[in-house]
Amino acid sequence: MAEPNDRVLRYVIGVDFGTLSGRALVVDVADGTEVGTAVYEYPHGVMDRRLAASGAELPPEWALQVPEDYRGVLKHAVPAAVRDAGIDPGAVIGIATDFTASTPLPVLRDGTPLCETPEFRDRPHAYVKLWKHHAAQKQADRINALARDRGESWLPRYGGFISSEWQYAKALQVLVEDPEVYAAMDCWTEAADWIVWQLCGEYVPNACTAGYKAIYQGGEYPNAQFEAALDPGFEGFSAVKLSRRIGKLGAPAGRLTRTAAEWTGLPEGIAVAVGNVDAHVTAPAARAVEPGQMVAIMGTSTCHIVNHDALVNVPGMCGVVDGGIIDGLYGYEAGQSGVGDIFAWYVENHVPGQYSAEAASAGVSIHQHLTNLGFAEPVGAHGLVALDWMNGNRSVLVDTSLSGVILGQTLATRPEQEYRALLESTAFGTRKIVETFAAAGVPVEEFVVAGGLLKNEALMQLYANVLRVPVATIASAQGPALGSAIHAAVAAGAYDSVRSAGMAMGKRNSVVYQPNASEADAYDDLYAEYVLLHDYFGRGGNDVMKRLKARREEALG
Amino acid sequence: MAEPNDRVLRYVIGVDFGTLSGRALVVDVADGTEVGTAVYEYPHGVMDRRLAASGAELPPEWALQVPEDYRGVLKHAVPAAVRDAGIDPGAVIGIATDFTASTPLPVLRDGTPLCETPEFRDRPHAYVKLWKHHAAQKQADRINALARDRGESWLPRYGGFISSEWQYAKALQVLVEDPEVYAAMDCWTEAADWIVWQLCGEYVPNACTAGYKAIYQGGEYPNAQFEAALDPGFEGFSAVKLSRRIGKLGAPAGRLTRTAAEWTGLPEGIAVAVGNVDAHVTAPAARAVEPGQMVAIMGTSTCHIVNHDALVNVPGMCGVVDGGIIDGLYGYEAGQSGVGDIFAWYVENHVPGQYSAEAASAGVSIHQHLTNLGFAEPVGAHGLVALDWMNGNRSVLVDTSLSGVILGQTLATRPEQEYRALLESTAFGTRKIVETFAAAGVPVEEFVVAGGLLKNEALMQLYANVLRVPVATIASAQGPALGSAIHAAVAAGAYDSVRSAGMAMGKRNSVVYQPNASEADAYDDLYAEYVLLHDYFGRGGNDVMKRLKARREEALG
Repeated sequence: MAEPNDRVLRYVIGVDFGTLSGRALVVDVADGTEVGTAVYEYPHGVMDRRLAASGAELPPEWALQVPEDYRGVLKHAVPAAVRDAGIDPGAVIGIATDFTASTPLPVLRDGTPLCETPEFRDRPHAYVKLWKHHAAQKQADRINALARDRGESWLPRYGGFISSEWQYAKALQVLVEDPEVYAAMDCWTEAADWIVWQLCGEYVPNACTAGYKAIYQGGEYPNAQFEAALDPGFEGFSAVKLSRRIGKLGAPAGRLTRTAAEWTGLPEGIAVAVGNVDAHVTAPAARAVEPGQMVAIMGTSTCHIVNHDALVNVPGMCGVVDGGIIDGLYGYEAGQSGVGDIFAWYVENHVPGQYSAEAASAGVSIHQHLTNLGFAEPVGAHGLVALDWMNGNRSVLVDTSLSGVILGQTLATRPEQEYRALLESTAFGTRKIVETFAAAGVPVEEFVVAGGLLKNEALMQLYANVLRVPVATIASAQGPALGSAIHAAVAAGAYDSVRSAGMAMGKRNSVVYQPNASEADAYDDLYAEYVLLHDYFGRGGNDVMKRLKARREEALG
Repeated sequence: MAEPNDRVLRYVIGVDFGTLSGRALVVDVADGTEVGTAVYEYPHGVMDRRLAASGAELPPEWALQVPEDYRGVLKHAVPAAVRDAGIDPGAVIGIATDFTASTPLPVLRDGTPLCETPEFRDRPHAYVKLWKHHAAQKQADRINALARDRGESWLPRYGGFISSEWQYAKALQVLVEDPEVYAAMDCWTEAADWIVWQLCGEYVPNACTAGYKAIYQGGEYPNAQFEAALDPGFEGFSAVKLSRRIGKLGAPAGRLTRTAAEWTGLPEGIAVAVGNVDAHVTAPAARAVEPGQMVAIMGTSTCHIVNHDALVNVPGMCGVVDGGIIDGLYGYEAGQSGVGDIFAWYVENHVPGQYSAEAASAGVSIHQHLTNLGFAEPVGAHGLVALDWMNGNRSVLVDTSLSGVILGQTLATRPEQEYRALLESTAFGTRKIVETFAAAGVPVEEFVVAGGLLKNEALMQLYANVLRVPVATIASAQGPALGSAIHAAVAAGAYDSVRSAGMAMGKRNSVVYQPNASEADAYDDLYAEYVLLHDYFGRGGNDVMKRLKARREEALG
């Protein structure tokens, strides 16, 4: 085939497995140009009410998925993306994937999901537990209490708390609630690693999920004594059901099998990269893997990741993992459990109809309309301060029983003013995280935003003013898939490291939001008010939120 | 004229002077039946931007009225009400009036308003200062500081604070800002007394406004030394410009003059009662003048009045006056500066369009719709608590710089839940007032509601549950005018006291809202949360509201 110029065109495929669908992206290895894409919706979506196979009702807080839906992404979205790109599939040199996490499933020794065996297809615990499966809270509480009692050295690496979302707690739930499934599984794997296994026939747990979600620290999982103390039946869990063959991010896990080549239409034998997590894979796509560069994936919630060259404990962080973002640095993670979700909640529940009409006639979204109105006046003119805890607090305080506050309303307070106060509250929440990292010795000198909220320019300027650091934005609407493509390029040998691949293929917008000194000064004062309320309501000054939540749950039976 | 039965029909007229209009009501002396009514809108309304006579701009916070507008009510609304009633004017035996307060004006010795003289018609200070004229705050601050320094015995009678709305502060503003007007006025009178003067030719200041608004306590106004210390030019203010000829409520001030008979079409010589205030005159109309019966006039704001047989000081009350509600008892007053206004603010600014559509299709008001939805779930199911300070705090804390709070929101919180939390916050604010009275030795055993909000049955039941006392409601949409008619009947000699006239002519609805024990228990817990926040934000635990207000005012220049 004739090439349009004398450069040899080579491509990689990045595949981003989300909550409801998977997206494949075809990317030029040389400069990261995105040349084609396609999406495949999971036929079973999220099973949170009934198990599709049996129709049986699921308990509250459950969220399951079907592994065959993930294979569907390989079979449908990948070839569709290649067709969309109009490229020769033979020019594809590698493929990499990223996944939601922690999203684990029980499998047999050959990788067959237990739910695909006739004996277990009607057993809910045989299916994939999606990240937002929240039914292992009791197990998480037990893990945390025991780890604190025993002074387990790994607990501070997770800010002092193991989440019920993580695979370790979810495995214990399987043992407690369905011991037969627990006994039958040879391996408890993250979907992030299972999909790689499907592509290359090799089971190579990735450093990122092993570290952040499976409590793998310093070459060790929690030990057998700890496991036995949790539950006698859990003794040996990590030795038997997990693997120590950890793959570094960007390394090849293996080569594309004939079967997977048939599914995808890609050449057999091309490089398949070690798996990864959607947030973490985004860092090189945003050219932000150096210490001091914090990446914030801002959507319904925000995930913050930052590299640092030393290992320290940051109170209330989500986790720190050696090589958790790129190999050779310690990757730190934190999060805010409600960001875009809070803005959407406000718009859906608290904005009168005439605002929608005004937005429509101005040809802007309701969010942009409220932003324009809200930011038309000086800092503090609204007289408000809010706490961004409508979905609890994930980092620093790590407390899901906290709730929201809006304070300072008068009879003259308008919705755009409260909307702005909510935007500000999320910026203050981020500053609290950044300051907590800095106080622990992990400085943040630049803030790089990926995710849907980067489109709101006033919000980006707000974050620059509140954080007093420059705010840059990724120049891709498909940050995770682009990040996976970067990892694929490294696994294929086109670059010698994720860092250098990211510099070549990652993309940023040219606009950088610089802090405005006088607005930053004014926000300092509002932030001081936020901190006072944060500590009063979040650190035991007044546990009204916990009491109101308990009463709410009691009242609703 | 033939009577329909052998009872001699006799009528009285009650006239209620409001903020924008005056209403006349014709009432049967025997049983309080309301037989006719009419309203007259003030042609000049409220002058808060320009002085009508000159077109001159008024400073911020000013609110003036034109006395001739009040005469218009006598000339138009009274005869129209008599026509509406279809009665013989000769059967009317008395007339009484009630007014907004404090609404003072400067007049000459013969009662001529200074603004009606050619020299002063262009001088803003020559006009009526409406109750909501808020430009005398500096003078009020000076009065309070000096009274505290000197330990003036009357200050505790007003909960420790003289309001900028009151005639004493407004008089000092006249002296400071227009000494010529101050020098030219022979008398500084409440409109409540001026209108009586217009009817009967006698100037008889009523005990209610003298006590609550002119600092008349124990037969004395503030003394000349205090006045001189305020401002040398103010020395002798009360001795010269006020009167000590105080009229008891329900007593006749005089008899209808020929001129006033011509204006009103009523018989010359009938009894004209001493003036009164709109809130206070309502107590006998609601048959609630005994100690332990608190009357709450619930509208945009709430005014609470209650009689007691002893004089005590209640922290943060608006005032206590001997004979301030009925002669022979001490009348206590308190208030909440935002009630219906808060509900209206919420509906206008925070409720999505589909709620209005649902309300319209259900054929109920948006307020009733939100109430129905909000109260469909058990106490505390919303998980919220609010502070009702969107218009400051008038009683107990007496602080206009306080602002609102809503706490406990999650992403599942709906507008009807916040609406209910706001209704609850006003009930908690009332309970705080009731408990403060009780702690000072003034018990409240029954709560009787007048005003527009009594139509909301869920709100009434809520107050019964939160206060743990029976809640009754007045059976008249014109409580103040009916109250004035009762005073007219007493002044005319048809009854020997306001108390007995109230028992005969006052009216209550048959439904009485009794506390529900289990809901009351649940509300106790929510009220405890309200009190924690009330004290934390209201008593110096965290002055964030004051700081946010200062910043807001600074930001808005």
